[in-house]
Amino acid sequence: MFQELVGARPAWVEIGIGDDAAVWRPAPGRAALATTDLLIEEVHFSLRFMSWYDTGWKAMAANVSDIAAMGGVPRAAFVSAGLSPSMATSDARELYRGLAECAAEYEVAILGGDTVASPAAAVVNVALYGESLSVDGAVLRRDAARAGDAIGVSGPLGGSAAFLRTQEARFRAAHVHPKPRVALGQALLQAGIRCAMDISDGLLADLGKLCAASGLGAVVRGGEVPVAPGASLELALTGGEDYELLSCGPRNVLEQAGLTVIGEIVADGSVSVVDAAGATITFESVGYDAFR
Amino acid sequence: MFQELVGARPAWVEIGIGDDAAVWRPAPGRAALATTDLLIEEVHFSLRFMSWYDTGWKAMAANVSDIAAMGGVPRAAFVSAGLSPSMATSDARELYRGLAECAAEYEVAILGGDTVASPAAAVVNVALYGESLSVDGAVLRRDAARAGDAIGVSGPLGGSAAFLRTQEARFRAAHVHPKPRVALGQALLQAGIRCAMDISDGLLADLGKLCAASGLGAVVRGGEVPVAPGASLELALTGGEDYELLSCGPRNVLEQAGLTVIGEIVADGSVSVVDAAGATITFESVGYDAFR
Repeated sequence: MFQELVGARPAWVEIGIGDDAAVWRPAPGRAALATTDLLIEEVHFSLRFMSWYDTGWKAMAANVSDIAAMGGVPRAAFVSAGLSPSMATSDARELYRGLAECAAEYEVAILGGDTVASPAAAVVNVALYGESLSVDGAVLRRDAARAGDAIGVSGPLGGSAAFLRTQEARFRAAHVHPKPRVALGQALLQAGIRCAMDISDGLLADLGKLCAASGLGAVVRGGEVPVAPGASLELALTGGEDYELLSCGPRNVLEQAGLTVIGEIVADGSVSVVDAAGATITFESVGYDAFR
Repeated sequence: MFQELVGARPAWVEIGIGDDAAVWRPAPGRAALATTDLLIEEVHFSLRFMSWYDTGWKAMAANVSDIAAMGGVPRAAFVSAGLSPSMATSDARELYRGLAECAAEYEVAILGGDTVASPAAAVVNVALYGESLSVDGAVLRRDAARAGDAIGVSGPLGGSAAFLRTQEARFRAAHVHPKPRVALGQALLQAGIRCAMDISDGLLADLGKLCAASGLGAVVRGGEVPVAPGASLELALTGGEDYELLSCGPRNVLEQAGLTVIGEIVADGSVSVVDAAGATITFESVGYDAFR
């Protein structure tokens, strides 16, 4: 089932699915990139809110987004699925169709995997290999912010979390069919930007990680955050799984790339949100963070 | 916890754990290899028979064995773990210690991972990236057997399965602490061999896959199979998880590499086992195969 869904083997692949390991020729001189994400049923996804197709799409998209956040080129994916022995073949096929369609959309070749029995809960792990955009190996990093940098985000934000709370149809695509910003990440890198990450745990939580990695703080102007129509500012700031990009650098460069500038990086090591009058806005939580 | 256990970052690593993706410089001109394995509690491992440390070691070893089976060089691992929120910190530490010690033993750098909550059953996925031994990109393949080739195995076989059946201490190491044959795979490749795979599902099941991939058959002489002391011939032929190598090529080359020759590849497309008199021996099952 898997082999037939993943399509034709690109020319750079020497051995695909079926041997002990896949073998391919990387583009000469590029740095190698890799990431992995594990999704557990009823922890990271629920068939009550989304289909098996959606689950497959999202599992692949979450990894593609990590490569996008580095300004890289996603290349080869390895999919592990633990599925109930009683799962309908049509459901398993839908899961793999979602994985394969997202992979095809971003020119990712699925070169391997492991499908096993998981009686208690379905689990899907994707490991994704990518390459740097050019031979200089430059990437977008979390720790490359500088005091005075503008903070830009792609958007809108909060739609994915709004779907989880409301199950309203208008928010559905944001939650179940995220579209990782691969072209945007590459454009930022080519424009000379060196600092970015994707927004997977919520804007404030992720900005906090970026600031911690860079040893700096941030001021966010709440009124300038691009909120998904119908969602709240709080969800835009604290809801997870938007898979948009967060980047730091010169204001004009970020804006030219299409980002919305929402604040600035500051030397003081904390993240605050201010209203139009400059007063600090506080929220009960700063974002979703999985058990670690 | 994870970061402190994985040790110092090798010089070829540019970004390790902590950013959206890891970044490293591959050895120039080598082909890229990758594999992944998903282990589910009570399906692929059980804490009734092995420790968390053993589980970590074995999860890494299963992937290292796949790279060994290609004659490749294992390089960078990405570990996903789904663990119970109520798991003791000391148990989680033991899991990661097992992963890290096996990685260190085979000079693998753990460059990323994802640790999440999995309330129902623990799951461990390892994705392993490797490189071809030389710039010619040659690897050991399953589909490269030729009629007339000798069939060689490293050994002994059956010990891992014997532990599952008996829980006898003498078989324990074979099951919980397998030592993938990385140096052997590389030596076979350098000696001109081009066909091999690892024995993970049982000798007869895996030989059947090798023969299917090569469009050929095989005759195995039961009396020449290296059986683990105390195990039966049946377990040596059908028990899984030995992580030894199975290889095909000229008899003298296989023997010089230290393999035991157990039979020959034949044009007829089936796998049979014969006794000293040449009579066919039959078994009820040909090996363990996970739900697919």
